[in-house]
Amino acid sequence: MKIQLWSVGKSHEKYVQEGIQEFTQRLNKYFQASWQIIPPPKNAAGLSEKELKKAEAESILSSLQKEDYLVLLDERGRQLSSPELAAFIQQRANESSKRLIFLIGGAFGVDEAVMKRAQFSLSFSKLVFPHMLVRLMLAEQLYRACTILKNEKYHHS
Amino acid sequence: MKIQLWSVGKSHEKYVQEGIQEFTQRLNKYFQASWQIIPPPKNAAGLSEKELKKAEAESILSSLQKEDYLVLLDERGRQLSSPELAAFIQQRANESSKRLIFLIGGAFGVDEAVMKRAQFSLSFSKLVFPHMLVRLMLAEQLYRACTILKNEKYHHS
Repeated sequence: MKIQLWSVGKSHEKYVQEGIQEFTQRLNKYFQASWQIIPPPKNAAGLSEKELKKAEAESILSSLQKEDYLVLLDERGRQLSSPELAAFIQQRANESSKRLIFLIGGAFGVDEAVMKRAQFSLSFSKLVFPHMLVRLMLAEQLYRACTILKNEKYHHS
Repeated sequence: MKIQLWSVGKSHEKYVQEGIQEFTQRLNKYFQASWQIIPPPKNAAGLSEKELKKAEAESILSSLQKEDYLVLLDERGRQLSSPELAAFIQQRANESSKRLIFLIGGAFGVDEAVMKRAQFSLSFSKLVFPHMLVRLMLAEQLYRACTILKNEKYHHS
């Protein structure tokens, strides 16, 4: 199974870049892992919130394959503990999912069409964090989940 | 009111340093804000988990003043939304607390004596995050809370 981390928006900001790189590399030892940054549409500034989400949804949905398992990061989703997240990933691997995709939406969230396509909505916190920081939190949690699955020691640098 | 961010352990790791600095500086425009890193005791390697927590508790408690309002970050604590956290900070200022202290405990959590001293246990997530990353998340959330209180636009860099 491949794990992909998708995020709508700009490339990683400097303050999270090193951490994202480090945790994604570590994650990569367990599952082939990569980021896909989905840039906002070129005419974004001229679009309403709704139009922007619709345009982003088109990019997202056209990049998805039918068998992809899509997890949407959403404050209103379900919170899991770290061991529960690990078990969730294991279940997807057991079902022989080919790609497990974690999606961080755009500034205004995601269009309803993307919500409907997602098989799972995952909440990290009741708090709202900036999307850049959520990227770092996600990379770290996926690495942590893998160490839990393999019963390996979490690597502290 | 001053806001202090206390953390048991080593100095900020490189991957979180820039972000912590940036958000603490921004926070500082609203409340005088500073970090206090509480180093583990010198003989830490020779101590049991319990002894280590006891030694850390002594450092923590001896640095506290009687009127300090202590918030302990703890997964098992209460989760607040970002507006609720903002309201919580406002309440402390209204009560004329002199110092509002947010404490991130050590590797094994904190001793019972610190739990008893804390007026509030705050949970960011059901997930376990590394303490270094919690420092960054805390600095960001406190800055965000202040922008909510002042009804100011969150600054995106």
